[in-house]
Amino acid sequence: MPRGTFYGVGVGPGDPELLTLKAVKVLQAAEVVVAPQAGRGKESLAYDIARQHLHGGCRLLKLDFPMTRNKELLEKSWEQASARIERFLQRGETVVFLTLGDPMLYSTYIVLFKRLSARGYAVQTVPGVPSFCAAAAAAGFPLGEGEEKLAIVPWSGCRGKPLAAFLQGFDSAVIMKAAGELSPILKELGEAGFLQNAVLVSKCGHPDERIERELSALSRTRAPYFSLILARGKEVSRA
Amino acid sequence: MPRGTFYGVGVGPGDPELLTLKAVKVLQAAEVVVAPQAGRGKESLAYDIARQHLHGGCRLLKLDFPMTRNKELLEKSWEQASARIERFLQRGETVVFLTLGDPMLYSTYIVLFKRLSARGYAVQTVPGVPSFCAAAAAAGFPLGEGEEKLAIVPWSGCRGKPLAAFLQGFDSAVIMKAAGELSPILKELGEAGFLQNAVLVSKCGHPDERIERELSALSRTRAPYFSLILARGKEVSRA
Repeated sequence: MPRGTFYGVGVGPGDPELLTLKAVKVLQAAEVVVAPQAGRGKESLAYDIARQHLHGGCRLLKLDFPMTRNKELLEKSWEQASARIERFLQRGETVVFLTLGDPMLYSTYIVLFKRLSARGYAVQTVPGVPSFCAAAAAAGFPLGEGEEKLAIVPWSGCRGKPLAAFLQGFDSAVIMKAAGELSPILKELGEAGFLQNAVLVSKCGHPDERIERELSALSRTRAPYFSLILARGKEVSRA
Repeated sequence: MPRGTFYGVGVGPGDPELLTLKAVKVLQAAEVVVAPQAGRGKESLAYDIARQHLHGGCRLLKLDFPMTRNKELLEKSWEQASARIERFLQRGETVVFLTLGDPMLYSTYIVLFKRLSARGYAVQTVPGVPSFCAAAAAAGFPLGEGEEKLAIVPWSGCRGKPLAAFLQGFDSAVIMKAAGELSPILKELGEAGFLQNAVLVSKCGHPDERIERELSALSRTRAPYFSLILARGKEVSRA
């Protein structure tokens, strides 16, 4: 029985022009596109970017992925999503999972990629421009030069250990998912020596993009959902 | 006097289909493209990717950037490059600097970006797909999931301190510029606990792309110029 291919396509960070030619080609041939719903409008953005490249007969499959730390709930939602996608693949259809940024960086795609490859389906990943590269371009903030070391750190992954412990020896850092209350992040960036040269980029590539360069003035502020911080420490490479 | 804009355009890691729509648009309007020459065919690859999108009247400016640690030589080559680009900008022409991967990640573009912005020229950066995202897609190797922390480390930046010192607390790593003799890299990856789950990707997206999954078998091998290693350590996030 012929089986369809499962694609994970990075649609870039938000600006529809940051789609790659390859992503456009895969979208144009898609029979089913999967738009993950993690709440807060995330899903509609990836679909909005993709929509203009889909043909009229392409179906949209919306899948719910709850924002929870409950392992059982997560496992259940992943299994349901896999099962729904497999039904299309078993009919030989091409299914495209849309992901903002790059599929191999912090995307729900990774879970489905692992499951469906393990079950013998053909899986192809089309890389995309990550949010932090677009933010660096928009803010004019070099991420790494020459021999510099760059740490990519989701803020939620830093519980229990100060940021300074992770950033020691690194020249620059991307703090992903810097949404919500900024004061604890700014405090730890300051202690790590990464606050003097830092920039907050929110909703990069969207019409309401915001770039803030005076981070110390933001300590009583909450950052919106799509926010990240780019930061550089004191010169360590030459030390 | 009207002045031209200086663009830094990421053409992606090697596969011409990984150009973004925005990069194509900027290339189509370019009056001058700059292809940096760092030796070993690096320059021709970025230009080869861009070439088909340039109009007939677009001029090519080849600039030499010596592969040296000599600060004076580097400074001289950077100043000469800036001066040559400025001549075009002062005539109001659009100059596009081509860069493999993303312009804000380990590109010579960063030096020119800093100089020309400081001198008051309009500078625009178009982000691209970094080599490590394309390598992760090709190898089916997730770079970061959930709260995982990712270290981007050029091998040449790790002198004097073992890799293990940088990777402690990180879940995954990209070792950039892993060209040449592999045994010292593999030894240090092993000591950091990152060798069991690692993959070497050379010339990603090129016709002679190579993906090696048995790294311990490669200790007597030399990796070609465009090589990087993706590696995961033991589970640290949940510890």
